[in-house]
Amino acid sequence: MAYIAVLGHGTVGSGVAEVLFTHAESISRRAGEDIKIKYILDIRDFPDLSYSELFTKDFDVILNDPDISTVVEVMGGLHPAYDFVKACLEKGKNVVTSNKELVAAKGAELLSIARKNNLNFLFEASVGGGVPIIRPISTCLAANEVSEIAGILNGTTNFILTKMIREQMSFATALKLAQDLGYAERNPAADIEGHDACRKICILASLTFGSHVYPDSCYTEGITKITLADVDYAESWGGVIKLIGSVKMQENGKIQIKVCPMFVSRESQLGNVDDVFNGIMVRGDATGDVVFYGKGAGKLPTASAVVADVIDCVKQQTSRKFLYWEDAKADFVDDYKNGETQMFVRCKGANISEAFDAAYKVFGELRELSRKNPEEGEAAFVTPMMTEYQLEEKLAALKALGVETLSTIRVSDY
Amino acid sequence: MAYIAVLGHGTVGSGVAEVLFTHAESISRRAGEDIKIKYILDIRDFPDLSYSELFTKDFDVILNDPDISTVVEVMGGLHPAYDFVKACLEKGKNVVTSNKELVAAKGAELLSIARKNNLNFLFEASVGGGVPIIRPISTCLAANEVSEIAGILNGTTNFILTKMIREQMSFATALKLAQDLGYAERNPAADIEGHDACRKICILASLTFGSHVYPDSCYTEGITKITLADVDYAESWGGVIKLIGSVKMQENGKIQIKVCPMFVSRESQLGNVDDVFNGIMVRGDATGDVVFYGKGAGKLPTASAVVADVIDCVKQQTSRKFLYWEDAKADFVDDYKNGETQMFVRCKGANISEAFDAAYKVFGELRELSRKNPEEGEAAFVTPMMTEYQLEEKLAALKALGVETLSTIRVSDY
Repeated sequence: MAYIAVLGHGTVGSGVAEVLFTHAESISRRAGEDIKIKYILDIRDFPDLSYSELFTKDFDVILNDPDISTVVEVMGGLHPAYDFVKACLEKGKNVVTSNKELVAAKGAELLSIARKNNLNFLFEASVGGGVPIIRPISTCLAANEVSEIAGILNGTTNFILTKMIREQMSFATALKLAQDLGYAERNPAADIEGHDACRKICILASLTFGSHVYPDSCYTEGITKITLADVDYAESWGGVIKLIGSVKMQENGKIQIKVCPMFVSRESQLGNVDDVFNGIMVRGDATGDVVFYGKGAGKLPTASAVVADVIDCVKQQTSRKFLYWEDAKADFVDDYKNGETQMFVRCKGANISEAFDAAYKVFGELRELSRKNPEEGEAAFVTPMMTEYQLEEKLAALKALGVETLSTIRVSDY
Repeated sequence: MAYIAVLGHGTVGSGVAEVLFTHAESISRRAGEDIKIKYILDIRDFPDLSYSELFTKDFDVILNDPDISTVVEVMGGLHPAYDFVKACLEKGKNVVTSNKELVAAKGAELLSIARKNNLNFLFEASVGGGVPIIRPISTCLAANEVSEIAGILNGTTNFILTKMIREQMSFATALKLAQDLGYAERNPAADIEGHDACRKICILASLTFGSHVYPDSCYTEGITKITLADVDYAESWGGVIKLIGSVKMQENGKIQIKVCPMFVSRESQLGNVDDVFNGIMVRGDATGDVVFYGKGAGKLPTASAVVADVIDCVKQQTSRKFLYWEDAKADFVDDYKNGETQMFVRCKGANISEAFDAAYKVFGELRELSRKNPEEGEAAFVTPMMTEYQLEEKLAALKALGVETLSTIRVSDY
């Protein structure tokens, strides 16, 4: 019998209890022994639940119970989650978490404590919800040099963009709908400003390249400025706008990492990932592109990923060489403005032909795009490939010619 | 230092050597120790290779060398692969294989020997080539009840179908092209008759539902009868024709398993898996649909999956509770004709209106399909959902009314 404790009884925590209770038999078959929740930590009372006797408000009871071999942290946030997780690892308990904020901020430190104490610190549910991604990268693709990862990592923004693309809903209306349906929080900043996707790509980058990448080193741009005009131009280009988190190893040994809206081709696997779904492409030298697709969030998908990690902790009682990365290396993250990209530019001159004339003068060559009912004087195009520093200069030159940039969106090559 | 032996130096075997040599450093970091090939077994000589001194023709040298902890079997075929693998497991060596024929025919027996001797018998590369699928099903999705798996499991047939769909190539021409490009064997039966896909879905079914499903219990239909007329009708229906291997658990506790061409919606994730790519959908009660996508074959993708398994064998020296299924259960596979499906039917009467009249008389309701330049008297439609026994009766009734069936293709709900 393996005893576990669950810290937090919110959406994911109650899902973990549900999965463990309803699938008890098949889970113990897979784990090789029964898995039993001995405690659930929450500041609230749940007197009506059939398992209300498991609740405690005292973390120390869990920490000091030698029966507890694995602790599940699904509280979210940095504090007290970090303090509790660290204490558990130092006390000799495996930890499983779905908390991307915690892993993105403190992963290297917690992994190092886990390694020192021969424990597992697992977090499959922190990226992709129910979509397997952490374990495939660290095991199935271990014989690859992964050069690049790009993914639709946030279901809420993907839902909003899908509504804008398919139903011509404005950003504000689509956000409101996402909130009404419970996909977006009342304060939606973490999703729509890209912070959630940023934490996730930082976790994937740390895992893939072996040293911690902190969220504040990742250029992050959300979807709040995307307009229906941009959506139309993306369609005329042959694609859709998606919020992409990406990381790429460069020849100079530094990584380019960023989160931003991008034009993605309809032909690409990521271009067909719609609604609240996530899709993550892993580019390896041996495997080529491998894509993982599924529901990136939600109570049961996330809970099932958590419980799969718990099963792994129970099975691997004697073998603990799983995930690992070192603390951040200096200069490992390259200035994002050194990165090369093609850029979609929507701009406005006195009239459309003057706008295009200026654009050709500045960029030399470009791919013109059109849409129905453009604004007066509006021109739109995709630039050649260049660094973001060069782009900045060119856009300044465009402005000097009297053409104002209305929006810019990077163009992906996936 | 972990010493391994590789049985077979064909496409996959030489790829395994290449991956191990070129990625030696990162692989030992991930495995926790160096991995070194001590022997390669092949009946041929390779005097020009830089590692020609590793070759042996004597299997017993490998079997009796206590240094060898893990043996890689990439010879293919049942004999002598089966005999060698069994001998290795009985001698206390882990085995990694990419041999789907072996796993589909002898999996339960070999897994049982491995379990008895506390060894690993791993075969990630046997399904999906470089696409991770075996390990995700057995670990990441372990907290799910998987109810259904459906996949495009054979790259060669998917390439042929893609050429038929996109370029209106005939089956014969597309097959010839696949052979010229090296995607199809000179004797292409295993691919185009569906046997390869059959072995793979049997492996996935065995793993998912815990008891061995033998290939001869799986209804298997290839793509040799697919015509461009069928391709056109699929398009007018809103989809494409794909060779799908599928297995589904039914309420009566039996599984429906089959390999056959199917209409697949363009909206579905599987409908966008083109060329030599594979895509596998796993439907779980907690995760919903998860899809894995990538190159299903090829030297380096397959080799990298083999080497990932080798790394796992080396890492898990003391923990061996991985894959397992029991021998086949009687009556576990339901008669496929009990399965319900909608069917695309292309048929021919004296003229089109008589053909449709007869079809309505027999089926009651149906969805008519059309194409440009149909044959004289040709009618095409999709039937309502019914068992295959019922369909058989209805098609006989249609024939009795003077309408000949030209082709039938199942319609998927993915």
